[in-house]
Amino acid sequence: MTLKTIVETAELEAFRLALFSAGKKLAFVPTMGALHDGHISLVKQARQTADAVIVSIFVNPTQFGPGEDFNRYPRTLTEDAKKLAEAGCDAVFLPNIATIYPEGFQTWVRNEPLENQLCGASRPGHFRGVLTVVLKLFNLVRPELALFGKKDYQQWRLIEKMAADLNVPLKVIGSETVREPDGLAMSSRNRYLKPEERAMAVAISRGLKAAVEKYKAGETNAATLTGIVAKEMASQPAIKVEYLTICDQMSLAPVGESVKGPAVILLAAQLGTLRLIDNMELNPAG
Amino acid sequence: MTLKTIVETAELEAFRLALFSAGKKLAFVPTMGALHDGHISLVKQARQTADAVIVSIFVNPTQFGPGEDFNRYPRTLTEDAKKLAEAGCDAVFLPNIATIYPEGFQTWVRNEPLENQLCGASRPGHFRGVLTVVLKLFNLVRPELALFGKKDYQQWRLIEKMAADLNVPLKVIGSETVREPDGLAMSSRNRYLKPEERAMAVAISRGLKAAVEKYKAGETNAATLTGIVAKEMASQPAIKVEYLTICDQMSLAPVGESVKGPAVILLAAQLGTLRLIDNMELNPAG
Repeated sequence: MTLKTIVETAELEAFRLALFSAGKKLAFVPTMGALHDGHISLVKQARQTADAVIVSIFVNPTQFGPGEDFNRYPRTLTEDAKKLAEAGCDAVFLPNIATIYPEGFQTWVRNEPLENQLCGASRPGHFRGVLTVVLKLFNLVRPELALFGKKDYQQWRLIEKMAADLNVPLKVIGSETVREPDGLAMSSRNRYLKPEERAMAVAISRGLKAAVEKYKAGETNAATLTGIVAKEMASQPAIKVEYLTICDQMSLAPVGESVKGPAVILLAAQLGTLRLIDNMELNPAG
Repeated sequence: MTLKTIVETAELEAFRLALFSAGKKLAFVPTMGALHDGHISLVKQARQTADAVIVSIFVNPTQFGPGEDFNRYPRTLTEDAKKLAEAGCDAVFLPNIATIYPEGFQTWVRNEPLENQLCGASRPGHFRGVLTVVLKLFNLVRPELALFGKKDYQQWRLIEKMAADLNVPLKVIGSETVREPDGLAMSSRNRYLKPEERAMAVAISRGLKAAVEKYKAGETNAATLTGIVAKEMASQPAIKVEYLTICDQMSLAPVGESVKGPAVILLAAQLGTLRLIDNMELNPAG
């Protein structure tokens, strides 16, 4: 299996049309590169459900705030291409910034009620950038399905909602978070954790897992459940919790006093210069 | 020629797929109904360039402000269907509001720099509603081309820009404004002009035409050209000018002191309870 590298939209269109003419089903995995096993599991899942898989690698400037890590976001293209080829990916789309955002670009996609909630509260403009670039990529690639990791839970739900709200003709699939053996959710930014931070970071998934287990044992009080995570976080004072909340899986609204329907416990925290997020669903999706 | 009436999106999908399988090219004319010769000229133009034509009639609630005329916007479905059948339209799509905006709808398309300019200045949220519904209709109908009247010049340009910015795979065409014999731009709302207002309203197109002629005779000073229209407006004190400006045809930025590139003179005015808009390009499109 050779991996086709596509930079120009005309090449992408030719690739897409060839598959389409042959009646082949195309799956799409949009990424920012620096691929880890979480991304690769999406590619493998795509491989199982479609005839062809295309991955995009585009570090999207509009989803980074002014003080954020756009410039130091990891770029590891050679390793990424090798991993994609091994995983059975057919093509990788590597658009230039000027292709995606030509001069005078001015039309944006926004989820107005949710874009400033959760991660959006500390990252103004982030989800506007995410939704806009993802819709553009959807329109360029025009796949039958697109896969996203649940680790970025709010991102996944907002993209799923965008596709439904704007009648985008494809299926959005959320796939389970892939974790390190000790439980840490895989993330392209984890490589920047110092060894002592890496050791501390595991407290996040340990806390979330403890809350899920308590829920499964019958506890439905939201404050009790978040309290379990908070206690774990308190054991690592270097980890500064940004938010810790239980939300409805679909609406992302806080559940209130007790967990009734499908819910997810979400956390964001600062550790050194890094911002870490993680979440776990408390019960099956609605 | 019989006109097919489509209400549900599943019927629309079947209609679209049948054409697509037969290799036929589909053109789309989105409207709010109350069709006049301007709409019909779009349908006829569509007919000439495509194998099939679909028109949507949807009075889009999200593009009307709280104090605006959503409830009294004219609805003339029987006459509309007759006109469409005569013009060679293949299908009319009449979605319900609940189909377009199901409960919990929350994703919007916005042209942030231009949505509050010109008509947007007095109609907050208007272009957000227009762009969102048009993108939804584009995704539902998936035509090869879509036609809009230049009478709503800013609307046309913002839709054209949206399609380009978001990589929507279709061609947006702007078509010349159709006018009454005396010059008044056709509009669904004109039926609400009282006879004396109807007589006054012609001053708008008369003023714009005089400015265009002055430009063609060599005058490039923007203030002189708008002054010609202003003078005509002053002759009808019942007409309250909301804006009168000369803008670049593409960016819609005011041209400044003198007209150099492709420009358009635009006017909005209040006459009784009605808001009227009109415009004329001063020179060929860039």
